[in-house]
Amino acid sequence: MPAMADETLFQLLHTQVVAAAYGAGRGSGDEGLRAGLTVLEGMGFRVGQGLAERLPRGAPAFREELDTIKFLCRDLWGAVFGKQTDNLRTNHQGTYILQDNNFSFLTQMAWGQQYLEEAPKFLAFTCGLLRGTLSSLGIESSVTASVTSLPACKFQVVIQKA
Amino acid sequence: MPAMADETLFQLLHTQVVAAAYGAGRGSGDEGLRAGLTVLEGMGFRVGQGLAERLPRGAPAFREELDTIKFLCRDLWGAVFGKQTDNLRTNHQGTYILQDNNFSFLTQMAWGQQYLEEAPKFLAFTCGLLRGTLSSLGIESSVTASVTSLPACKFQVVIQKA
Repeated sequence: MPAMADETLFQLLHTQVVAAAYGAGRGSGDEGLRAGLTVLEGMGFRVGQGLAERLPRGAPAFREELDTIKFLCRDLWGAVFGKQTDNLRTNHQGTYILQDNNFSFLTQMAWGQQYLEEAPKFLAFTCGLLRGTLSSLGIESSVTASVTSLPACKFQVVIQKA
Repeated sequence: MPAMADETLFQLLHTQVVAAAYGAGRGSGDEGLRAGLTVLEGMGFRVGQGLAERLPRGAPAFREELDTIKFLCRDLWGAVFGKQTDNLRTNHQGTYILQDNNFSFLTQMAWGQQYLEEAPKFLAFTCGLLRGTLSSLGIESSVTASVTSLPACKFQVVIQKA
């Protein structure tokens, strides 16, 4: 039953999670939007932690920060979205831009400029996912996301230097 | 990266969904518990609908009610939990008992009799999942779950005759 893939299952549940974060009277107005984003980001963070904690014990340690980021682009993205990110850029000073030209959670949305304001709801979980995974790998960071043209988006990871 | 399987991802997100349904002051007391269960069941219902709608168009129609139930035990359980149910019983009058002796969402819980009261929180989504999948396949039902000995549980599906 290939159409009932786990990837679909995860995406369907994510869609319900976003809807629930903004349903039932919560999430109206700017304050509600921020509260919903915080909830979603927190859920993503803890799922990211859980994934990182389940890495095989024998997994090779990441020697450099860039190795860890590449792990996110390749392995984390692969496990969650079934593909790799399309591009990775860095200023070599602790800031990384992960670009996905066809981000799964955005392709489900109706297209059109008027939906751009809805986009943050569909990015917050993944921001948390990146931050939580990195945290469990020993790297504290802040992660934000931006959309310029649906369904492409960029995640900006800024490493917090100790 | 086998340890980052999609199945794990889905389970981690489900855990967060349950926690969110009972977090932030919601879900205290009997009324809160019921409200949380309703939210979780509704999310499961819509995910089940989504999965059923993604079935291949060429999928063979189910000739009999029992065929549809067997599809749940084999294919739906396979897609969501990576295995089949352990047992299926029926009274041949529209009631079906699906048994899982090692239900994934319960194995994550701490074991012990004192946690039995927590169990419904980890079953509500799947009750909805079964009901939503059946609904999209043209069968209206009510679905309840019970636990006698963790981590085994039974889902009772009662078909609503037209």
